[in-house]
Amino acid sequence: ALAAPAIAQSQPKITWRLTSSFPKGLDTIYGGGPTFAKYVSEATDGNFQIQVFAANEIVPGLQAADAAAAGTVEACHTVSYYYWGKDPVWALGADVPFALNARGRNAWQYHGGGIELFNEFMAKQNLVALPSGNTGVQMGGWFRKEINTVADLQGLKMRVGGFAGSILSRLGVIPQQIAGGEIYQALEKGTIDAAEWVGPYDDEKLGFQKVAPFYYYPGWWEGGPTVHLMFNKGKFDELPESYKSLVRTAARATDSDMLSKYDWLNPTAIKKLVANGAQLRPFSQDVLSACFDKSNEVYAEIEAKNPDFKKIWDSIKAFRKDHYLYQQIAEYNFDTFMMSQQRNKKL
Amino acid sequence: ALAAPAIAQSQPKITWRLTSSFPKGLDTIYGGGPTFAKYVSEATDGNFQIQVFAANEIVPGLQAADAAAAGTVEACHTVSYYYWGKDPVWALGADVPFALNARGRNAWQYHGGGIELFNEFMAKQNLVALPSGNTGVQMGGWFRKEINTVADLQGLKMRVGGFAGSILSRLGVIPQQIAGGEIYQALEKGTIDAAEWVGPYDDEKLGFQKVAPFYYYPGWWEGGPTVHLMFNKGKFDELPESYKSLVRTAARATDSDMLSKYDWLNPTAIKKLVANGAQLRPFSQDVLSACFDKSNEVYAEIEAKNPDFKKIWDSIKAFRKDHYLYQQIAEYNFDTFMMSQQRNKKL
Repeated sequence: ALAAPAIAQSQPKITWRLTSSFPKGLDTIYGGGPTFAKYVSEATDGNFQIQVFAANEIVPGLQAADAAAAGTVEACHTVSYYYWGKDPVWALGADVPFALNARGRNAWQYHGGGIELFNEFMAKQNLVALPSGNTGVQMGGWFRKEINTVADLQGLKMRVGGFAGSILSRLGVIPQQIAGGEIYQALEKGTIDAAEWVGPYDDEKLGFQKVAPFYYYPGWWEGGPTVHLMFNKGKFDELPESYKSLVRTAARATDSDMLSKYDWLNPTAIKKLVANGAQLRPFSQDVLSACFDKSNEVYAEIEAKNPDFKKIWDSIKAFRKDHYLYQQIAEYNFDTFMMSQQRNKKL
Repeated sequence: ALAAPAIAQSQPKITWRLTSSFPKGLDTIYGGGPTFAKYVSEATDGNFQIQVFAANEIVPGLQAADAAAAGTVEACHTVSYYYWGKDPVWALGADVPFALNARGRNAWQYHGGGIELFNEFMAKQNLVALPSGNTGVQMGGWFRKEINTVADLQGLKMRVGGFAGSILSRLGVIPQQIAGGEIYQALEKGTIDAAEWVGPYDDEKLGFQKVAPFYYYPGWWEGGPTVHLMFNKGKFDELPESYKSLVRTAARATDSDMLSKYDWLNPTAIKKLVANGAQLRPFSQDVLSACFDKSNEVYAEIEAKNPDFKKIWDSIKAFRKDHYLYQQIAEYNFDTFMMSQQRNKKL
């Protein structure tokens, strides 16, 4: 049943601050914050205002969740795998290697209990987390030379973060931490051999193809990464019921909006990149299989000592098996046929 | 800029009626109506109520849009291709053969101007239409015997509607109109040879595998069909700005919710169907290519005489080419690898 307070109480004037993990230049992923704020403000005649701050305006991008948990700000817009160093469970909320594509992740989150499972863990961090964006599968990154076999990964200095880096390091890659703005120069000088960023639309702006022309796919460590809104738990719990519901609805609309926007923008970007010299390369089955096996080794190690991780990962894995069983029937065959027509220039 | 009326004016008490094209038994697709109504009611503390009526409670399912246009009800939840007989432009709002998958459709609708283009046409029908659901690619239907070549379509009596039926008829199929509740018996008696319904989750409830065991895919006439909320234009235009924005946000959240729900439910259903005797069969390349060519013939004929159709179809086609170019890179390769692991029982 709905709470039925007087109208004046049901739309109290509230102003929140939201810190984003993203710079404004990553306009699509950063844009999720302003989009969400707009939906909420409009639906409340401006009574519930959420001011959005880009990375570094209040705190650095990688401290966004900490700032929301501490109450420095009421909300943040971030990717939970940034915080996997605290506990790998954080990564499960966003994405981990060889998990679900975007549609699978959404099915699991919204109807498979994923949001509730992740929030059991987030409550311990003093946060409430709602999905509010997805990039689709990312690219595997930019490489100065071709990677044909697992042996080619040996000694490769690659700008790659978190979970993926820890798996790649078991195959001889030397993960590097480099800020976004310094990647180009590091590739140009040869300080690093490879770097992953996001996908065509964001990558195109940085011109990596000029210094590392081989553009590999897929980014197997991010098959459909969720971007989250996270709220200070006390502040969220205090909201009137109408605002809580609106926040959930607006987050959900934002979630869908970001993926659609990337899906709209990426095709044009990939054409530009190829026209400007990018050379598309799929990771070989050999490389993908080795990465898959190493990922499973890492999962087994974490599961053995982290029951929170095991609980959520078991839930994802159970659905993953059924999702890819189902998706290979009608969806895959429709797409395969349409792609064959595209290659035959019949579209 | 936001209108800034007094609070009491900004959340006026409104009760609308929404007629659904679906019976309650199709709980996922019907469910979009109640889900949307819940989002709107909760965010307004119950001030904006939308009462949802199943098909036939107010008007028959296939008259839902007419009832909203006439103002008999303020809103309906329906699939616009039901009305393609009035004008084939209606079908473009939902889906047409060999168009876009669900992600592509959303990209085009939300960021490619699709919603605006369709609403230029809908305004002439006295309606405002917002996407609010998707089933994902549908199945090709249930067949009593195998379809291996185009010749096997000759004389086939198939329960299949609208646009797809008109294309299949050019390949010798005899389209039949049969209400959902009568399909089983018609297949059992052999009055018809084949029938399409929706997809595994809805089909499983009706037990078609017992009378027509060959379950074909993909449903090439519905690669990612949009279900719409449609509003009487005058009633929608009269809403306060805050309600208009909320309706858009809630429709969008509903759009995403339905697809996630089908994606969650279909895998379990397909396993049950196969366990109970359904035999999965892909349409052959020969059959798909013939249907694709006939579809293009039909499109060319309509475009030649219907400028509204040509304008929207040109817009879809332009994006379709780029969408399938892009999707075959990272998305397709990630999915292909994961599906191969699924078949190798490694997930």
